[in-house]
Amino acid sequence: MMSRGKARAHANIALIKYWGKRDEELFLPMSSSLSLTLDSFYTETEVVFDSKLDRDYFYLNDKLQSEFQTKKISKFLDLFRIKKDIKYNALIKSVNYVPTAAGLASSASGFAALAAAANVASGLNLGERELSIYARQGSGSATRSIYGGFVEWREGNSSENSYAVPIDDAKWDIGMVIVIVRKSKKEISSREGMKRTVDTSPFYNAWVKSSKKDLMEIKKAIWDKDLEKLGAIAEANSLRMHATMFGARPPIIYFKPETIQVMEIVKDLRSDGIPCYFTMDAGPNVKIICRLSQSKIIKDRLKERFEDEQIIISGPGPGISYL
Amino acid sequence: MMSRGKARAHANIALIKYWGKRDEELFLPMSSSLSLTLDSFYTETEVVFDSKLDRDYFYLNDKLQSEFQTKKISKFLDLFRIKKDIKYNALIKSVNYVPTAAGLASSASGFAALAAAANVASGLNLGERELSIYARQGSGSATRSIYGGFVEWREGNSSENSYAVPIDDAKWDIGMVIVIVRKSKKEISSREGMKRTVDTSPFYNAWVKSSKKDLMEIKKAIWDKDLEKLGAIAEANSLRMHATMFGARPPIIYFKPETIQVMEIVKDLRSDGIPCYFTMDAGPNVKIICRLSQSKIIKDRLKERFEDEQIIISGPGPGISYL
Repeated sequence: MMSRGKARAHANIALIKYWGKRDEELFLPMSSSLSLTLDSFYTETEVVFDSKLDRDYFYLNDKLQSEFQTKKISKFLDLFRIKKDIKYNALIKSVNYVPTAAGLASSASGFAALAAAANVASGLNLGERELSIYARQGSGSATRSIYGGFVEWREGNSSENSYAVPIDDAKWDIGMVIVIVRKSKKEISSREGMKRTVDTSPFYNAWVKSSKKDLMEIKKAIWDKDLEKLGAIAEANSLRMHATMFGARPPIIYFKPETIQVMEIVKDLRSDGIPCYFTMDAGPNVKIICRLSQSKIIKDRLKERFEDEQIIISGPGPGISYL
Repeated sequence: MMSRGKARAHANIALIKYWGKRDEELFLPMSSSLSLTLDSFYTETEVVFDSKLDRDYFYLNDKLQSEFQTKKISKFLDLFRIKKDIKYNALIKSVNYVPTAAGLASSASGFAALAAAANVASGLNLGERELSIYARQGSGSATRSIYGGFVEWREGNSSENSYAVPIDDAKWDIGMVIVIVRKSKKEISSREGMKRTVDTSPFYNAWVKSSKKDLMEIKKAIWDKDLEKLGAIAEANSLRMHATMFGARPPIIYFKPETIQVMEIVKDLRSDGIPCYFTMDAGPNVKIICRLSQSKIIKDRLKERFEDEQIIISGPGPGISYL
């Protein structure tokens, strides 16, 4: 007995950040977030439930992963197995497609693709909203990768009403330039960073409050196709997130010297009349939101300081697709 | 008719930061602060009230300053002139002594030396506490430069009770290594930065509250001569101040790539068992608090990335002296 499913999901970059959980187990966030799905980064995953397997096997980029690495995947698949009373183990094959070994977090596209593949393999056949609830329980940011374009993850107050909603298809002149400052694994995981911030930063409550306001304003800016406004809100939101970390004890600093360099270049580009805005997640890499039609100019400027392979241009990407 | 006074005052570096005024006119701060006076940086100023002068003349480092520059000095001297009913104009000669053209703020030592010189020239002969109230009205941080060693500036709630108090003479193994990252004038003045932060940062109230706690704790650490504790509090306090600026709209970022570099070196030194801690003010330069006996080791490490003249060692300095 066996059943299979295969799906693709794209990465997303938050413009209004997800930073802090109100429920660690269910991945319920402290506040809603909003992202842009990207076309340049995606994950393809196949799930096969097979009665002949003695345990779950997880291959990432054609490499068999350790039992420790597989545990998280197994736990996630259990959500589907329990729901459909599936007793079989699974073979999971996942491939991350990124232009270079970017070191960008792949947990969003990874868990979204896994959820979609398991959705088919299990025969559960959930709709997208339901699927986003499942993806959320693998990784918070995966919630948003179910949809393409601009996507809001509504915080909700229970597992059933914390899901993603598409906001705008982003089929206008919008894109991102991603600068890979460091490939190395970060010293403090997002999970740990969030927890320490929520527990110790005196700025955390004010962040949640101001982020709610940012979300309302950025949605209006998106619907108005107002890049300047959208970008300014995203940049400020990202800095406020990092401010909450600066306030933690001990403080959390993800900035590297090159992070600041990119921020300075972005500022210079704006002075030159090119609207572009930076956003940083829990790591030193910088994502620049801009007009897709101007992304080449921005990349050229960045190449004065960074290597070609460190700079990746991406347009808006689609939601999950079944393969 | 003429009368003269001359004095020297040393710079100070805040470990618990002064960031935000509750009264712009009187320089009343939102919260108390605490600093270490430094021996390597000081200002010597002479004030001569002279009936023959047609206006105030202000020489800084032997260079006659513009009338615009002189205005602020004149306004400050008026505090003394009004008090003692002096009708004469003044000749002010001020010299900043710094190891290099460091670009470090000299307003603290500047206004403390000016206040002390005017104190003598006017015949007002205030005691040190009173003098710190006067100095405060030239520049907030000048309040603390009246005394040597560790100094607290008590916020108070009126001009009369917002003054400096010596906390500890710092005659133990403590010092600072100052890294001059950029000499250029900063784009946003402290005054403007403070105001924007108070007006727009959602983190400001939490900062004031947490800073009060830091102050209590750092005083205990000073009295215990506990460098590790003192340093950790100072570093976190400084980062929280910068976090409030990240939260402002538009955001204020004083960090340069080299600022982060120094922070990383400090972290590495600590990993190597050398207790040292960074603090930054409203600018990109970094001050490292450490044992004076280990300051050479720290400087040597910094010299792998910075020029010798960018790195200045200083021990604790004395309060004002009359010359």
